[in-house]
Amino acid sequence: MGMNILVAHGGGPTAVINSSLQGVIEAARDSGRVDRIYAARFGAEGILKGDLIDLTHIPAQTVTRLGHTPASAIGSCRRKLEDADYPQVLETLKAFNIGCFFYNGGNDSMDTCCKISALARREGLDLRVLGIPKTMDNDLEVTDHCPGFGSAARYAALSASELALDASALPIHVVVLELMGRNTGWVTAAGAMAARLTDCQVLTYLPELPVDTDRMLADIEAGYARGKGLLVVVSEGICGTDGKPLADTGIVDGFGHTVPGGTAQHISDLIMRQLHIKSRAEKPGLLGRASIPYVSPVDRAEAYAAGRYAVNAALRGESGSMAAISACREPEYSSSLFLAPLEQVANAEKKFPLEWIVDGNRISDAFFQYAMPLMGGNFPEYALLR
Amino acid sequence: MGMNILVAHGGGPTAVINSSLQGVIEAARDSGRVDRIYAARFGAEGILKGDLIDLTHIPAQTVTRLGHTPASAIGSCRRKLEDADYPQVLETLKAFNIGCFFYNGGNDSMDTCCKISALARREGLDLRVLGIPKTMDNDLEVTDHCPGFGSAARYAALSASELALDASALPIHVVVLELMGRNTGWVTAAGAMAARLTDCQVLTYLPELPVDTDRMLADIEAGYARGKGLLVVVSEGICGTDGKPLADTGIVDGFGHTVPGGTAQHISDLIMRQLHIKSRAEKPGLLGRASIPYVSPVDRAEAYAAGRYAVNAALRGESGSMAAISACREPEYSSSLFLAPLEQVANAEKKFPLEWIVDGNRISDAFFQYAMPLMGGNFPEYALLR
Repeated sequence: MGMNILVAHGGGPTAVINSSLQGVIEAARDSGRVDRIYAARFGAEGILKGDLIDLTHIPAQTVTRLGHTPASAIGSCRRKLEDADYPQVLETLKAFNIGCFFYNGGNDSMDTCCKISALARREGLDLRVLGIPKTMDNDLEVTDHCPGFGSAARYAALSASELALDASALPIHVVVLELMGRNTGWVTAAGAMAARLTDCQVLTYLPELPVDTDRMLADIEAGYARGKGLLVVVSEGICGTDGKPLADTGIVDGFGHTVPGGTAQHISDLIMRQLHIKSRAEKPGLLGRASIPYVSPVDRAEAYAAGRYAVNAALRGESGSMAAISACREPEYSSSLFLAPLEQVANAEKKFPLEWIVDGNRISDAFFQYAMPLMGGNFPEYALLR
Repeated sequence: MGMNILVAHGGGPTAVINSSLQGVIEAARDSGRVDRIYAARFGAEGILKGDLIDLTHIPAQTVTRLGHTPASAIGSCRRKLEDADYPQVLETLKAFNIGCFFYNGGNDSMDTCCKISALARREGLDLRVLGIPKTMDNDLEVTDHCPGFGSAARYAALSASELALDASALPIHVVVLELMGRNTGWVTAAGAMAARLTDCQVLTYLPELPVDTDRMLADIEAGYARGKGLLVVVSEGICGTDGKPLADTGIVDGFGHTVPGGTAQHISDLIMRQLHIKSRAEKPGLLGRASIPYVSPVDRAEAYAAGRYAVNAALRGESGSMAAISACREPEYSSSLFLAPLEQVANAEKKFPLEWIVDGNRISDAFFQYAMPLMGGNFPEYALLR
């Protein structure tokens, strides 16, 4: 007699969140100890409604396809579970006789995990709760890095390089690239790879440092004047010296938050109006977390392994932890998984080290030593003949 | 005793223009009849300055790398050669003793090719002039399609599908995707593939039909209300019923043209302000012509073949033509090359058939029968469990 398991996704998906799901399903099947494999349809919403998808018998081929399916194959939501929701959560867990619950998400989801774990213990429920980390933002503590980050970083690095080559091959404008990461610059920093892979000049601005617009424009003017094109890489969340976002739509959304928008376009407009240099802004946006052809194979393998690891840990009786990654970078990259107590991860935020930002607009070697293996290596060598 | 050849790039690059360059170089080497292989540094600018790159002895490995190098490896420019420039062009051709000239570009470049060919004939110069087609816009006449289009279309199709999956997996907003193609909808139409590859609803707007904003918003509201998320794919160049672009930056560039910008962001703002639905706009922009991981292998092979074909045609004495593609789609796709007189191609524009636009916002099967083989096949089958 085995047990039933439930897996749910929380928050924004990554390019490899379904690889973790694949790991969960395959480990559960391989164990021979799981009766039913359930997934919450649209994350917390599905848990609250008791709306679960039964994945027990989906074909192996479909499971394999998860490895190249972007977004969340089972659906996710932004809803954060609150204290008032927990009785309903317990009801669903009981109704489906869930023995292990896996929550695949970021900071908020780990906090939820932590609370459900404590609640189940108080209620005397035989429930094991394991977190599986996921965030392109890479802002989870304890773990060396987060599944989802390596692929978002590879997307940023290669896309920025491709744009930089376009900008230097036809140097008629300054190209401004906006990347995701409202509060943290981990992904945007990876865009600075373009300075290493191409002959183009690159200026990079992260949200961790306020931007002095006048100085930025002076640097852009000087950089463009040196020829060979110029790429400016900015995080969507960069702020001015007044601490306010450089750009917003002026629109307030249903949650009362001002909708940010068009940081790159805003800078591009400044370049045209104030420097009288032609400019264009590009904003791939969600593609940075959804693009499959740019997935880092290392990231995909680690996301898969984290899913498997969580299932195996739960089956041997572990609970209240997250599958975290420890990494060794010398002499060559290798990583392994360990269990981190959920309390250490919940609501903590790993900051981008300020000392990795050089002169306000360049990224130090230390970042690339950290991030390059996560991006999966195999960086292209371009043929530049001009 | 062989001859010297010159190759130049004109206008915006594509993801496979360097594959044509690879074809030119390898065919020239294989022939044993070419003494020196020159490339114009930054296209017409290099020709006018006599600034040529000598590629005769670059390593074979570098030539191979051209196949995955985006943008133009030799540089391009937007400058269109004018009558007053031609004496200078002839001077460069004579100074470097050029026997064959290959111009790799779109409409304008084919017009230039045509004029140089006529001029050389008038001046009694022993010069063969061949055009190699290149445009992501696919608007060249006579040829079935244009090298560069298949990859831009594959980028549009897969990126739109990835965004559609993100939009339906976390259906908290309408996602608006802006794609390149100011005057023609060939590339944007490929974004409608998302409706075939995912479970998300997709509305597609091409620049060929004026957009009634009220009707568009009504369709967006109804589509979003049906659930499963909504992706709106728009060309950067769509116009309102007054014939004016839906959005522009209000900035006039150095050439006196109003700089367009933010069509997707404009529509996204309308959705939020008028429909009170959350929305976000994505604009990968130049990535649509520079992305290497999304390159269509069919497109890359045809671009390479076009470069080779032009060299071999020139060496057997042909001149005044462009390497054009004829394609057969049944029972399976195959293509071959033929010579099209430059006069038939220069300044003509292939229009997107209006009958391929259904109800103003969907794309007919006929387009996909035309375009799918060019995108290189191998479309992903996604695992959708929700």
